[in-house]
This record gives sequence, C-alpha cells and structure tokens, in this order.
Amino acid sequence: MAKIILVTGGARSGKSTFAEKLALKIGNGKATYIATAQIFDSEMAERVKLHQSRRTDAWTNFEAPFDADKIIAEIDAEVILFDCVTIYLSNWLCAKNLEDKNLAADFENFIERLIKAAEKSCATIIFVSNEVGAGIVPENKLARVFRDFAGLANQRIAAAADKVFLAVAGFAVDIKSFAERI
Amino acid sequence: MAKIILVTGGARSGKSTFAEKLALKIGNGKATYIATAQIFDSEMAERVKLHQSRRTDAWTNFEAPFDADKIIAEIDAEVILFDCVTIYLSNWLCAKNLEDKNLAADFENFIERLIKAAEKSCATIIFVSNEVGAGIVPENKLARVFRDFAGLANQRIAAAADKVFLAVAGFAVDIKSFAERI
Amino acid sequence: MAKIILVTGGARSGKSTFAEKLALKIGNGKATYIATAQIFDSEMAERVKLHQSRRTDAWTNFEAPFDADKIIAEIDAEVILFDCVTIYLSNWLCAKNLEDKNLAADFENFIERLIKAAEKSCATIIFVSNEVGAGIVPENKLARVFRDFAGLANQRIAAAADKVFLAVAGFAVDIKSFAERI
Repeated sequence: MAKIILVTGGARSGKSTFAEKLALKIGNGKATYIATAQIFDSEMAERVKLHQSRRTDAWTNFEAPFDADKIIAEIDAEVILFDCVTIYLSNWLCAKNLEDKNLAADFENFIERLIKAAEKSCATIIFVSNEVGAGIVPENKLARVFRDFAGLANQRIAAAADKVFLAVAGFAVDIKSFAERI
Repeated sequence: MAKIILVTGGARSGKSTFAEKLALKIGNGKATYIATAQIFDSEMAERVKLHQSRRTDAWTNFEAPFDADKIIAEIDAEVILFDCVTIYLSNWLCAKNLEDKNLAADFENFIERLIKAAEKSCATIIFVSNEVGAGIVPENKLARVFRDFAGLANQRIAAAADKVFLAVAGFAVDIKSFAERI
Repeated sequence: MAKIILVTGGARSGKSTFAEKLALKIGNGKATYIATAQIFDSEMAERVKLHQSRRTDAWTNFEAPFDADKIIAEIDAEVILFDCVTIYLSNWLCAKNLEDKNLAADFENFIERLIKAAEKSCATIIFVSNEVGAGIVPENKLARVFRDFAGLANQRIAAAADKVFLAVAGFAVDIKSFAERI
C-alpha cells in the first residue's frame, strides 16, 4: 500500500516548495512530478515556468490535466509529487454542467478514482492542494461549487493520507498528528 | 456553568461533521440541534437537506435564525449543537443599516446575549463557525463589515470557550491548547 | 542581532491585539509602534482610530507607509511593533506598474530591505501580517499579484523570524515550533 501525504495551504504559503523538498528527501534526490495545469494564458505560463525552474533533472516529469488515475497506474517510481489537486479539479469541473443533478455523485467518483490509483501505486504520493474556503462566500456560482468540491477533495484525500500538512508562511504544520480524534 | 466549545474552519473543512460527532459522543448518542439558516433559494435548500440527511433521530431539532439566546434558555438538554454562528450573524446583519453609528455596539450586544445564554445553560454547547477573513479584502462593504463581525464573533466565543477547534481538511486541531498565553 | 517575530492571521483574528500584548510584555510596559496605513477614506480612518484607541501612552508612535527600513534604522527602542506588512506592501504595490518585467525582482528587493533593517536593529521587532491567500482566486489582476506578494512576504519574514504565530479566533498558535523540518 502506498503512503499518501497531503500538503495543503493558501496561495504562496510555501506548499509546493515544501512538497518538492519532501519528495526529494523521500526519493533520495530523485522524484517523479505530475503537473496538472493547462496553459491558457501568459500569466499561467509564467507560473508554470516558475515552478519548472525549481525542478532540476532530479525530476521525471509527467503532465496530467485529466485522467491522472491512469497516469499514476502506469508510473513506476519511488515517490510521486502531484501538484495540484485544485487545478486538476478545476480542469474536471470546467467541462461539467453545474446544473447536472449527478454532479455531486460524479465528483465523488472522480476523486475516488484518484485516491484509489494512489493507494494501488507502489510509490509514496504527495498531493499538493489549496485552501480556498476561508474567504467570503463568492458571488459566482461556479466559484461556490468549486470551493465546496475543493474542500471535499481535501477531506477525502486527507482521510486516506498518512500525513496531512498545512503550510503557513513557509512552514508545514502536521495537522493530523495534532488533531482531535473522536 | 456550561461547557462551551467552538469549532471553526473554512467552507467544507469538515467542521459540521466533526461537531456532530463530538455532540453525539458527549451526549451518548443523543443531542439537540439548533439550525440557523433561513431558506431563500434552492441552493440553500440543498445545503440544508444535506446537513439534515446526516442527522438521524438521535437529534432533537430547533430552528433559530433569530433570538437564539431565548431558544437556548428554554432548551433542557445535555448537549446542544449550534450550526452556525456566521449564518446567525448574517441573518442579524441583513436586517441592519450599515451606516448606523451604533452598529458596532449593537453587534457586541448581540453576540454577548448569545454567549451569556450559552453560559447560563446547563448544556454543553458546541458552536460551529466559519473562517471568512483569510482571502482578499472584499470590494463590497456589506461583505467587509460581515467578515469583521464574523472574526470578532469567533474571538468573543473563543474567549468564553473551554475548547477551540480549527477544522482543516476534515481534521480538527485544538487551537487553544497549542496557543501562546501572554 | 534583533529577535524577529511574525504574527499572521485572517482579518479580525486577533493578531494586532496579540502582537500589542506581546510587545508590551517584552518591553516591560513600553513599546514603539510603526503604523503603515495611509488614510484615504472614513472607513480606514475608523479602523485606524480603533487601533489607536487600544494604544495608551505606553507607546511611542511612528508612521511609515513607505521606506520603513530607514525609519527602523533610526529608532532606538527595545521593542518595535510593525503593523502591518500587508498594508505596507499595498502602499508599495499601488505605486507600481503591474506589467513591469522587473516587478518580481523589485518586490524581493523591497522585502529584503525591510528584513535587513529589522535584522540590523537592536530592537525585538514584531511584524503583524495578514493571511490573504485562502479564498478563491480573485478575478482582479492587482488582487492576484497582491496576494502572491503578500504570501511571499510572509514566507520571507517567517524564514528570518525566531517565532511565527498564526492567530485564529483570538489565539496565537506557534507555527514554527510545530512545523516539520526537512
């Protein structure tokens, strides 16, 4: 059974940097990277370039904006860094109809496929995700649905994870160890 | 004196689920629920239905979109779950004039009445609340006033509480135990 | 070498109140305050007045919406409270062109000057900052750039700090002590 780790946090909280260091530490200087971003505009291109510039040839790179479960199943690696769950969710959600009555069930299916693939893998898998639910309720329905699913995705992955970190100002706090168990 | 517990967290951080389990544990499988939502639209109706579907006949249910202090005073129960402070605050704020010079004082009064009622009750009272202040400053004045009052409400209740939990990705971290005392 | 402390948190999480108490405790009842706000409107004036009303003559007050590094260098004090990093950043960013290719490098320079000034000071310096990155991605580009820089500013200061606190509902959790070190 794979070891699963979740690193979540707000924007620019240091979660990717922490997850990259952790991946290379576990993999003794080598790790596999699964990128999820689709590049639509120059701002996203800049952000991807910044992430890539931090990753040297210590990394084997894959891209999985969709169907990451299939890609995880095919990768033979000691450690996989999946960055990030919220972009991957966003890719999925943008192809959906928000009024579809099966949307919630489809989401559960979608996130379960990802978690099952991670559990079946021999690799340690580090999921990077975002905290998006600690602001004011968004006026836009897509944003509200997205933040609900993002929160649920974090809950589902965290429940399957051995370790859950919350990044704050560059520091990663081990949430699961300090959490109340009831 | 009642035992007061605050469970706060972002949207879909698992705070209601945690608070419900905690209430049933404290009440040995029985608890009283105070709902605060007014149902205006189908989206809110869906959300309320989801919350209700999790609550079996282990629960005695009350509704208190307004004047919850009076309802708390009348309830004879071992454990009360109040879900949630931010909706209750929002019901109150929407009936107010944002330009009223007494608004801040009125708010302190409003939140004090709720806390005093909780303190006088014989029940253990679990307040569920939301973290709404960790995003960008909202452009809308109502949203700014709301997030200020929501943060203050959480501070006031936390100060009166025996335990304060922050829910992150389904895990509830005991904030008060780990906080610096000065 | 100065002792540096970062207190971050969402709006109305109690970070300023905590930081003020901490400053007065370290300074045995006396401390120096560096305010960063420029007052443009009545809402900001109200907020500043509220902050000032909490500060008695135990405080020596300075204003530094810009070039705080020079002001820090000139202050001879045991303890300085800098409130807050995000307003100071906002003052700086509003005078910039978002399309400037040197913006990221300029930012690093700007924040490094502040940290170097703090390190050179003989005072213990407490920086108050805001968590602004845990909501939905803002639609407005200025807001996106601001929240990225605010997150990075917190990371840079936290890396230089001896203590990092996250304020939640009036309680300040010592993040650095509980963080994973890799």
